[in-house]
Amino acid sequence: MAEIFPHTSLRRSPYYDATIAEGVSVMHPYNRMLMPLGYGDREEEYWRLIDGVSMWDVGGERQIQLKGPDAARLAQILSPRDLSRCVEGQGKYVALCDHAGTIINDPIILKIADDCFWFSIADSDVGLWSRCVAAERGLDVEVTEPDVSPLAVQGPMAEDVVASIFGDWVRELRYFWFGDAEINGIPLKVARSGWSKQGGFEIYLMDGTRGSELWNIVKEAGQPWGIAPGYPTPSERIESGLLSWAGDCDAKTNPFEVRLGRFVDLDVPDDVIGIAALRQIAAEGAKRHQLGVVMDGEEPMANSGHWFDIVSDGKKVGDLTNNTWSYKLRRNIGFGLVSSDCQIGDQVAVLRDGESIPAKLVQIPFREQDR
Amino acid sequence: MAEIFPHTSLRRSPYYDATIAEGVSVMHPYNRMLMPLGYGDREEEYWRLIDGVSMWDVGGERQIQLKGPDAARLAQILSPRDLSRCVEGQGKYVALCDHAGTIINDPIILKIADDCFWFSIADSDVGLWSRCVAAERGLDVEVTEPDVSPLAVQGPMAEDVVASIFGDWVRELRYFWFGDAEINGIPLKVARSGWSKQGGFEIYLMDGTRGSELWNIVKEAGQPWGIAPGYPTPSERIESGLLSWAGDCDAKTNPFEVRLGRFVDLDVPDDVIGIAALRQIAAEGAKRHQLGVVMDGEEPMANSGHWFDIVSDGKKVGDLTNNTWSYKLRRNIGFGLVSSDCQIGDQVAVLRDGESIPAKLVQIPFREQDR
Repeated sequence: MAEIFPHTSLRRSPYYDATIAEGVSVMHPYNRMLMPLGYGDREEEYWRLIDGVSMWDVGGERQIQLKGPDAARLAQILSPRDLSRCVEGQGKYVALCDHAGTIINDPIILKIADDCFWFSIADSDVGLWSRCVAAERGLDVEVTEPDVSPLAVQGPMAEDVVASIFGDWVRELRYFWFGDAEINGIPLKVARSGWSKQGGFEIYLMDGTRGSELWNIVKEAGQPWGIAPGYPTPSERIESGLLSWAGDCDAKTNPFEVRLGRFVDLDVPDDVIGIAALRQIAAEGAKRHQLGVVMDGEEPMANSGHWFDIVSDGKKVGDLTNNTWSYKLRRNIGFGLVSSDCQIGDQVAVLRDGESIPAKLVQIPFREQDR
Repeated sequence: MAEIFPHTSLRRSPYYDATIAEGVSVMHPYNRMLMPLGYGDREEEYWRLIDGVSMWDVGGERQIQLKGPDAARLAQILSPRDLSRCVEGQGKYVALCDHAGTIINDPIILKIADDCFWFSIADSDVGLWSRCVAAERGLDVEVTEPDVSPLAVQGPMAEDVVASIFGDWVRELRYFWFGDAEINGIPLKVARSGWSKQGGFEIYLMDGTRGSELWNIVKEAGQPWGIAPGYPTPSERIESGLLSWAGDCDAKTNPFEVRLGRFVDLDVPDDVIGIAALRQIAAEGAKRHQLGVVMDGEEPMANSGHWFDIVSDGKKVGDLTNNTWSYKLRRNIGFGLVSSDCQIGDQVAVLRDGESIPAKLVQIPFREQDR
């Protein structure tokens, strides 16, 4: 692949200098910020996440803050998930939708205070969207992007590392819950969250000038557990079944198609954006669903930069929206966004650069026995 | 800089294969699509644009289409510039603003038909914004991103090249006007436009499967004039004074601050988004303005990936929002977004990596005598 042009429209994370010093070799633009996606040894980096602990610059997961008397109201209007029982210190995963029920982002929503919410966003402009809705509905709320940049610590040893820095209270945090913290005077929030299924935390840095300092504190504290730099890891996240909204959805994808129906509450108020459309889709049934795809062949193929057609009996039945070498299955795997007529166990083919690769549809998350 | 990860959230332009074959070496994400920004010899590529003709994959300039009975109404609601006299076949440059008068994009708006407009956008999600406004205001209009990908032909020889392909009618096109065209059955529109001040055209490809074919037709036709691959060229666009919305604006920049006040019509209807705020800013006067910055030193410094502070008498007076080596001035130049108290001729300093570089403020576009 080509290099990235150093344009001022691509921002640097507060951890940028630290990751450059660590030898980052692959980057990915995310919310107009460069996010590391590789330090040189994909397999080693994968196993460190599975067996040990890994630290990630995920500063690109920007926070969109809603603050003011109508903050809670706006948060609910934007969210087809009931937030009425969400309390301060709690986070919730939400599939934000447009008026047609199409997913436009899938943030963690953190309730900071009764009049303040952060949307910890995937890669689309939730700030623009939220400001538009707030202004069009005449709500009394300010939408900003505060100086907050998460650093993830992920893997089975992450809890020990994070507890060694902040104390044992972090061990009691429930999933998506968070608390205030401070180290060397650096203002932080610590949440049990992160874009892997190996467990871990996200440390929300609230002073962008102190990224290198926080990086080094975590790096130092993690030495006994062999911590090293990592990143949201395509192999692990696909094996585990985590959605990459921008990569795995198209301009028509609704939550029911990509296993997010369980995060939709159809009984939210009628003024919630998209809820009327989602009720109709739920009643009629989604036309597509997301299944795992395991391809034949024992040689890793490269991550692809685009979708591939999935065919059955010579007819297109869906798209392979990502692909990765699975170290667990020792096969090339990916997510299929396929017709609801397709079922687990179906034999299909993936069309790739003129080649037809035999494949089967399996459940998500992937299991070793499905290879 | 690091390499770009081949993620499916970064789309390939229809000209991707052609530009890879041409040896593209630097890419820039733009509207979630990779856009070439270098083929290996920046100086040669610059002079070809200034003296000859250059062809650019600007597929990342996506089109947002408004279509339906309320398309014209929505286009005007989004635009603080009077579109009422815009006719079919005409384009207009517009600074789209949010309700606070902050620029959110600066597209060319093309009137395709009375009920159909294309917004040929800079790098932000105008589709999301437009869908939100349309739905919130209950307008009868469909907002989509059609299969349309511009290929730019720029430079003083561009007219000869484009006329040799499509005929002499293109010589009569006024700036931002366009017409339908076809070559080998490929459906196109040809516009006199492009992100340089060297003159030229953008060919709007309306069938994404035929990008390589169109590329090769233009390449072949341009041989007598020495055409070769190029890209929106930082040196030329900064010398010429063209704004890069995402790079040169922050979360508070209004059109008056960045020389776009002449594209704002304060007498558009009151339901136009942002017009109330813009009227107020116009009445009070903007707090910042954009001036040229010429730095001391005769050695090219690298394009920077972030803004630098501009100081005067030890006090910050603004930001250097880009920088480039100017082949015309043989100096490092850039745009300053500075306090309205700063004037052309002022001596200032640019703080860069701990160094203070003497600089002066000059008019935009840059002139050779200002070095």
